[in-house]
Amino acid sequence: MKKRVTVLGSTGSVGRQALDVIQREPESFEIIALSGWKNTNLLLEQIKYFKPKYVVVKDEKTSKELKNQLPNRDNCRILFGEYGLIKIATIKENDFVVVAIIGMAALKPTIEAISAKKRIILANKEIIVSAGEFVMKEAKKNEVEIIPVDSEQSGIFQCLQSRYLDNIEKIIITASGGPFYHLKESALDSVTVEEALNHPNWKMGKKISIDSATLMNKGLEVIETHWLFNIPANKIEVLVHPQSYIHALVQYDDGSIIAQLSDHDMHIPLHFALHYPERLKNDLPRMNLSKIGQLTFRKLDSKRFPSVDLCYEAIKQSGTFSVVLNAANEIAVNAFLNQMIRFKDIVKIVSIVMSKHQNMLNPSISDIFYQDREARKSTMKICNEYKM
Amino acid sequence: MKKRVTVLGSTGSVGRQALDVIQREPESFEIIALSGWKNTNLLLEQIKYFKPKYVVVKDEKTSKELKNQLPNRDNCRILFGEYGLIKIATIKENDFVVVAIIGMAALKPTIEAISAKKRIILANKEIIVSAGEFVMKEAKKNEVEIIPVDSEQSGIFQCLQSRYLDNIEKIIITASGGPFYHLKESALDSVTVEEALNHPNWKMGKKISIDSATLMNKGLEVIETHWLFNIPANKIEVLVHPQSYIHALVQYDDGSIIAQLSDHDMHIPLHFALHYPERLKNDLPRMNLSKIGQLTFRKLDSKRFPSVDLCYEAIKQSGTFSVVLNAANEIAVNAFLNQMIRFKDIVKIVSIVMSKHQNMLNPSISDIFYQDREARKSTMKICNEYKM
Repeated sequence: MKKRVTVLGSTGSVGRQALDVIQREPESFEIIALSGWKNTNLLLEQIKYFKPKYVVVKDEKTSKELKNQLPNRDNCRILFGEYGLIKIATIKENDFVVVAIIGMAALKPTIEAISAKKRIILANKEIIVSAGEFVMKEAKKNEVEIIPVDSEQSGIFQCLQSRYLDNIEKIIITASGGPFYHLKESALDSVTVEEALNHPNWKMGKKISIDSATLMNKGLEVIETHWLFNIPANKIEVLVHPQSYIHALVQYDDGSIIAQLSDHDMHIPLHFALHYPERLKNDLPRMNLSKIGQLTFRKLDSKRFPSVDLCYEAIKQSGTFSVVLNAANEIAVNAFLNQMIRFKDIVKIVSIVMSKHQNMLNPSISDIFYQDREARKSTMKICNEYKM
Repeated sequence: MKKRVTVLGSTGSVGRQALDVIQREPESFEIIALSGWKNTNLLLEQIKYFKPKYVVVKDEKTSKELKNQLPNRDNCRILFGEYGLIKIATIKENDFVVVAIIGMAALKPTIEAISAKKRIILANKEIIVSAGEFVMKEAKKNEVEIIPVDSEQSGIFQCLQSRYLDNIEKIIITASGGPFYHLKESALDSVTVEEALNHPNWKMGKKISIDSATLMNKGLEVIETHWLFNIPANKIEVLVHPQSYIHALVQYDDGSIIAQLSDHDMHIPLHFALHYPERLKNDLPRMNLSKIGQLTFRKLDSKRFPSVDLCYEAIKQSGTFSVVLNAANEIAVNAFLNQMIRFKDIVKIVSIVMSKHQNMLNPSISDIFYQDREARKSTMKICNEYKM
């Protein structure tokens, strides 16, 4: 039987790759709904190809634009905004939801999808960072499986498809180190937006590219690993591995390590997540270690890249600290992308916002959104103070 | 409840390490029987420490020597020869048998242990190479599990503790390349026994050290992998990885790879095998990738090291070809160790013996022993012709 899929964020980088995988296997999947915010041109193409029953865009204006361009509007309902996202995440015609929207906008639709007992294929990082405890509790309560597609989390997930879950001594996620890992601390002062966007191994969206350059991305993944796999922070380690072929390693308490490796291609974890619990053959290019020649490893330098330590601190403090860290980081990254602040200011500002935060334990979803908004406001203020 | 163990070959390198593991966990294991061939001094120590009920030595003379030295001979029966090995492999007081004897001497005791439904902890390579089809059929018939302890086979075994056994695209075993992988073909003509015994990563017995230098060891492991995991030869690959930290990689048909890594320490796979299907915590030193710094990989050069191709050929021919390959190799390695033939002659001679062999399909155990003896005789003759 075909799996019926909703893709939230189908015009983004991961969303497009998810549709790639789905497109190659029309016998396995059927697209029920798509959401694409503002890129109506691409959405139109996707609608013509996949013939979804529902499409969600940013707002009413965009929905009208799209409606006017649709050749046969009867077969596809166009919705908009958060209401639309929640609608397509929960409709009874779908089996699972690919969450490929960036940022907190994914939180409510994901929680509603979980309540509606839809399987979650998760590419969003921020909602687990900000609301991991809440999301995982809901998933457990509703017996919903969350299958990660981020390469590191997918790597861990794949390593853990074994009987030894009680014997985990340490989970090691690898970090490419980003484009600046070879630079001295002083040289980090003057890096440009263009340089920061130029990731050595992966083509990705802007936000995540900057997060890779500050290594905040890896810190967020530590928080994510903590919640997704219920692993205490002191059992999670970051290892710099510039070639990014080993995505994750699970060290067992008898000294043996199981690792997951694959090419730099998000189609691989997406393909795995979409077919899970099965594996299915694909014809993606295979990794060739003798051609690659060498894999190198270095200790994380948290003096030059203090972002990861901030994330460990957020786990330790628990409560709303991760919400604030995530919100502050998003605003600071935007400020850097807009050339308002310098590269090194990103993590500095996040740290300042965190230091001013009054923690709130066991936050509700509205607490989380409230703290998220407050943190964004105060980060904006500090960014203004740091304005170049 | 304690697991009751027989160790065949307790005075050899792997046998001693197995006893190391067992010694550290007296609450988990009890030694029922040991066999030690001729090293009576070490056997005496082991008897005093582990208090086995049975001990087997090479012959009657050695058994008398040992009896005279035993302080309290009533509690320990001393047996000898193949009869003794079969006896201690099958006694009803034990749960499993560690097969750490080198060579074909392990075949009959192992088959008898399987018939007696004892779990096999397998460190012997030759019996699977020579009689893999037979041994695995017996194991299946008797519902006996064979747990390998060789680091590569243990690596595969550990990777395969998952649900994806039908999705294996390729099994890759790594080869250090041995002490001579950096040498030009011409330089291989003049290497000495001492140089060949000097393995870069592992301290091992003489036979296996020479097999590592010729890479025949890796070829034998290809044959072993074929039988132990029921994997066709065209799905087994050898990858040169001089640092020997990744022991095996399993590539699935969706392009994802699961690998097993650990330090150069046979205690780790032994500990795993002895506790299987559980993993139990140990305090062995942990591998540290950031200290190791780099892992390198190269394609196998089968022109300089033709031994692995001979092993693929033996699988292809099936029948008694592997018996002959194994026997010829053992004799030729001995001839090299005795400085009778040159290093490069080892594989050349194996190849000649194989080329003269008339295959026999579906051999019985006595056929296997017959072919083994015949191959040894004809190899000896050819070694004499190649005498330096």
